[in-house]
Amino acid sequence: MKDKIGIGLLGLGTVGSGVIDILRRNGELIKRRVGVPVEVIKILRKDSNKPVPADMPRNIITTDIKEIIDNPDIDIVVEVMGGFEPAKGYILNAIENGKNVVTANKALLAINGEELYSAASERGVDLYFEGSVCGGIPVIKALREGLAANKIESIYGIVNGTSNFIITKMTHEGKGFGDALRETQALGYAEADPTFDIEGIDAAHKLSILVNIAFGTPVDFKEIYTEGISGISPMDINYAKEFNFRVKLLAISKMKNGSVEARVHPTLVPCSHLIATVDGVFNAVYITGDAVGPTLFYGKGAGDLPTGSAVVSDIIDVARNILKGGNGRIPPASFREENRIPLKILNIDDIVSMYYFRFTVLDMPGVLSRISGILGEHKISIASVIQKGRQEGGNVPLVMMTHEAVERNVKNALLEIDRLTVVSEKTVMIRVEEGK
Amino acid sequence: MKDKIGIGLLGLGTVGSGVIDILRRNGELIKRRVGVPVEVIKILRKDSNKPVPADMPRNIITTDIKEIIDNPDIDIVVEVMGGFEPAKGYILNAIENGKNVVTANKALLAINGEELYSAASERGVDLYFEGSVCGGIPVIKALREGLAANKIESIYGIVNGTSNFIITKMTHEGKGFGDALRETQALGYAEADPTFDIEGIDAAHKLSILVNIAFGTPVDFKEIYTEGISGISPMDINYAKEFNFRVKLLAISKMKNGSVEARVHPTLVPCSHLIATVDGVFNAVYITGDAVGPTLFYGKGAGDLPTGSAVVSDIIDVARNILKGGNGRIPPASFREENRIPLKILNIDDIVSMYYFRFTVLDMPGVLSRISGILGEHKISIASVIQKGRQEGGNVPLVMMTHEAVERNVKNALLEIDRLTVVSEKTVMIRVEEGK
Repeated sequence: MKDKIGIGLLGLGTVGSGVIDILRRNGELIKRRVGVPVEVIKILRKDSNKPVPADMPRNIITTDIKEIIDNPDIDIVVEVMGGFEPAKGYILNAIENGKNVVTANKALLAINGEELYSAASERGVDLYFEGSVCGGIPVIKALREGLAANKIESIYGIVNGTSNFIITKMTHEGKGFGDALRETQALGYAEADPTFDIEGIDAAHKLSILVNIAFGTPVDFKEIYTEGISGISPMDINYAKEFNFRVKLLAISKMKNGSVEARVHPTLVPCSHLIATVDGVFNAVYITGDAVGPTLFYGKGAGDLPTGSAVVSDIIDVARNILKGGNGRIPPASFREENRIPLKILNIDDIVSMYYFRFTVLDMPGVLSRISGILGEHKISIASVIQKGRQEGGNVPLVMMTHEAVERNVKNALLEIDRLTVVSEKTVMIRVEEGK
Repeated sequence: MKDKIGIGLLGLGTVGSGVIDILRRNGELIKRRVGVPVEVIKILRKDSNKPVPADMPRNIITTDIKEIIDNPDIDIVVEVMGGFEPAKGYILNAIENGKNVVTANKALLAINGEELYSAASERGVDLYFEGSVCGGIPVIKALREGLAANKIESIYGIVNGTSNFIITKMTHEGKGFGDALRETQALGYAEADPTFDIEGIDAAHKLSILVNIAFGTPVDFKEIYTEGISGISPMDINYAKEFNFRVKLLAISKMKNGSVEARVHPTLVPCSHLIATVDGVFNAVYITGDAVGPTLFYGKGAGDLPTGSAVVSDIIDVARNILKGGNGRIPPASFREENRIPLKILNIDDIVSMYYFRFTVLDMPGVLSRISGILGEHKISIASVIQKGRQEGGNVPLVMMTHEAVERNVKNALLEIDRLTVVSEKTVMIRVEEGK
């Protein structure tokens, strides 16, 4: 039996430092679980002159990937450098050399997952990536293992802490989007260029990974409909409250008649739904399986230690495989490579949803009737209406919630409505989910 | 490579039927995950004349355990008969014969877990028991694997759906305990003899299992302090609301200076805490790890399909081990047998907690001063007081929340207070947790 498990760490940024920190502080505990120590053998950095983590010898740092990939003492390559290249090439080389791989690289998996999954499956090594979705929450493990008996029916996730923090500020402090974003940046929860987070791209990366393993299908990332939170105004958040709803940026996927819905957008969810109570930088994923029913997995979605927790737990998992010769026991994409079936991702225009509309209309008689008339022609029926404030001859908001309708019909109706002379601004449309 | 995984099922009650149902309806999907079919070979029943599940041959039923334990086609013995004997003997025999075991038997694991864990470890077979705690929620997997990088700091669980359903009825419908219990029984969520559920014993069984795997220590079940919900009155639930708290039956465990707290009792938790929002038959476990921070795992805690989901997911896990020769990779008790360290379970008198008191006192001047004086002498400081209604010379409730105090001091103070002539009834004491 091996007397230790050797790690080669690619990258020493936020997550890499978290991994080092956890392996050090919980080293004894991890040994009690695994049976042998887990030891970092080499760390790859671009610049060998940067400071070495405390208590570590200077020669642990290398700038040469070969010192890791060709190193017989290294059992697991841990990729926490991020980005596409050279990360992807390094992972593929590691797999080729029979190394097991742990990564937290969501963008890479969302875009190039197929190539990596099949490489690992073919070579029979482990490819674990719990840290790529929702930081420390073991939701990949839930889908690949803990709920593996289930046909997954739906997934509703708050999977981006930055946008959730911004929306929480807007909801509870009444801030506008710009102010909330600036405060989030000042606290270090949003990057200088926040595009990936606020435009839903990061959430879509994570959803792509979840959909893949939940439904056993390859996912073309471009087919995931993605809409961010930059268009959300405090006015809509407040109207949502009046309907007893919260606005959340949700990553949603559902199995519908053999096709898959996969979309990221701001969503109204009932205040009484657990996912509506997930505030601040926290993440949560609400998964419904045909046997288990609804489940929720909640925790911190980012940060050195939460994501480090996922990466190190993956290391422990892989180490347990190594010691028993069980590597490759869990297919990277949850379903065995030969048993994955490509499913159609439904076009956003074909989905059925409930909707929230905020029309900006001239305050004059007959407006509600014209708008509801057009909605009716497009088979959209109204569930409730709020019309407040009077400003004769001026602009007033007219707010509606609908019953279920087809998105294509909604878009056509809004095009028609926005052409009316009594409608003064582009109508705001937000999708509504009961989350069942 | 094996061309199928054979199951021997012990028992065909609620959970056993759920297992059959899931294996049948999701058989194809499970095969896509595992690589080969999972097939029930034999089902042990006490009475061979009971009806056979649809589509199954009559000879699948046996009354002879040997037909399962000595059967070379059976790889996994699934024990869902419940109770101590013969279940325990059957499991030990199965392990001895090199069979892997999946069980949902919480009482057996809570009381005889050590014997089973070490037998499985020694023989190098798998012993999985996700179904024993919180039905379909993969919380055992979270502690053994998904959060394995963490030093677990605390666990707060709503782990008994029956008592949570009763308390939810009392909270939201203002029912008394007796009425709420009867309605719960009428709905089939409580048994005719509800003692195990309402007196916290079932919750303590589950806590015992969680504590064992969270902290790597054997647990003597008798050392878990257990108090049920039968003494909770709507009055206390309402006062709790006024303080912005909810009453929940919590299973609590914390690591405190190398000792472990492990206790089940009604608890006031802040309304703003996620665990306070877990209503009805749902279960949830709030686990804090040193790296991951707080996490929550939520779902249905009982029922044929939710518990069946856990059992079948365990079967898939074990099957994946069998196909790769990885059995024994996860120590049954999460820590390797030789690395478990017996920890002291703190006596309830030594815990530090906040408290809720409801005194029943004569409505006369000086009462508050005498009571608060005695509390002060016992180093218990008051955080807030509610004194409502006036009934001069009659009995009125006097309600208090305290800051942190030592339980022993609280008991001594209450003994003294309850002896006062101005105190007319035994004081109600409920522990309070912020849940951090």
